Amino acid sequence: MRSHQCPAARHPLKLCATLVQNPMNLGALCRTAEVFGLEQLVLPSLKWAEDQEFRKLAVSAHQWQPMTECSVDQLSHWMSQQQHQGMSIIALCRHNQAIPLPKFLFPKRSVLLLGRELTGIPEALIAQCNAVVEIPQYGQVDSLNVAVAAAIAIYAYLSQYGDMATE
Amino acid sequence: MRSHQCPAARHPLKLCATLVQNPMNLGALCRTAEVFGLEQLVLPSLKWAEDQEFRKLAVSAHQWQPMTECSVDQLSHWMSQQQHQGMSIIALCRHNQAIPLPKFLFPKRSVLLLGRELTGIPEALIAQCNAVVEIPQYGQVDSLNVAVAAAIAIYAYLSQYGDMATE
Repeated sequence: MRSHQCPAARHPLKLCATLVQNPMNLGALCRTAEVFGLEQLVLPSLKWAEDQEFRKLAVSAHQWQPMTECSVDQLSHWMSQQQHQGMSIIALCRHNQAIPLPKFLFPKRSVLLLGRELTGIPEALIAQCNAVVEIPQYGQVDSLNVAVAAAIAIYAYLSQYGDMATE
Repeated sequence: MRSHQCPAARHPLKLCATLVQNPMNLGALCRTAEVFGLEQLVLPSLKWAEDQEFRKLAVSAHQWQPMTECSVDQLSHWMSQQQHQGMSIIALCRHNQAIPLPKFLFPKRSVLLLGRELTGIPEALIAQCNAVVEIPQYGQVDSLNVAVAAAIAIYAYLSQYGDMATE
């Protein structure tokens, strides 16, 4: 049996899902964050972790994954606080000034900021970020699902840092 | 507006979801396959593409993504056919003999074989594959969602080949 991973051993990447609205996507993000041992998942409200659809997708990850909450109104302020603590905020969205993910080098202490399902990240918040990255896409469908896109970006981070880079 | 991508321009990676049982996962896989321009998505039956839950997750990707069907009973035979046509079958699952995904070099013409949501890929089928790869995982929760894991593996393939490697 694997031992419980203490917070200090987690990868110093925070996943900010404040803008994500669908509880199934939030639950899927919780599962992925837990499987990859991320430091923190930020929900728009911790009440979502009680939601039936969230739980269905999170399987039991909510029991293990460190989570906190930040409302949309507080997001800009929270981002500033994180930056003052030395975290870099990396926006993940399609954007004409975005860096393609395969070319991006993540700062080790990063927050991955996710967008709203249909409308993405407001420009005012993008302007506050340290970088904007996007996953190259080739289809007719406009974009990947937010939980899928986040998992790919987390994998790219872990391929750069952590055990995965040396395994 | 982006032009319709002809099949010849698609990436020569097939995604075999014959063992996947949840229509929401199949729909999510359809969206990801379309966004990444994959050659083919293999469903257990094309009837799933009519399912309401499939459609909800696929958004409109089923209109664009080339799809075919292969039943579980026919899977071993289908895999042999693909191998005779020069395709390599790559199993994606947790396995004690798996190669960690960050260390794996995909053959260009590959089939990514996905597992059943709870039980993965039967050993007899794994034995028939050209390689087995797994995504390093660190959590208490046993594994990533199959659609999330597939998206990460597809990203790894596209980082090695295709436009993404040179963008």
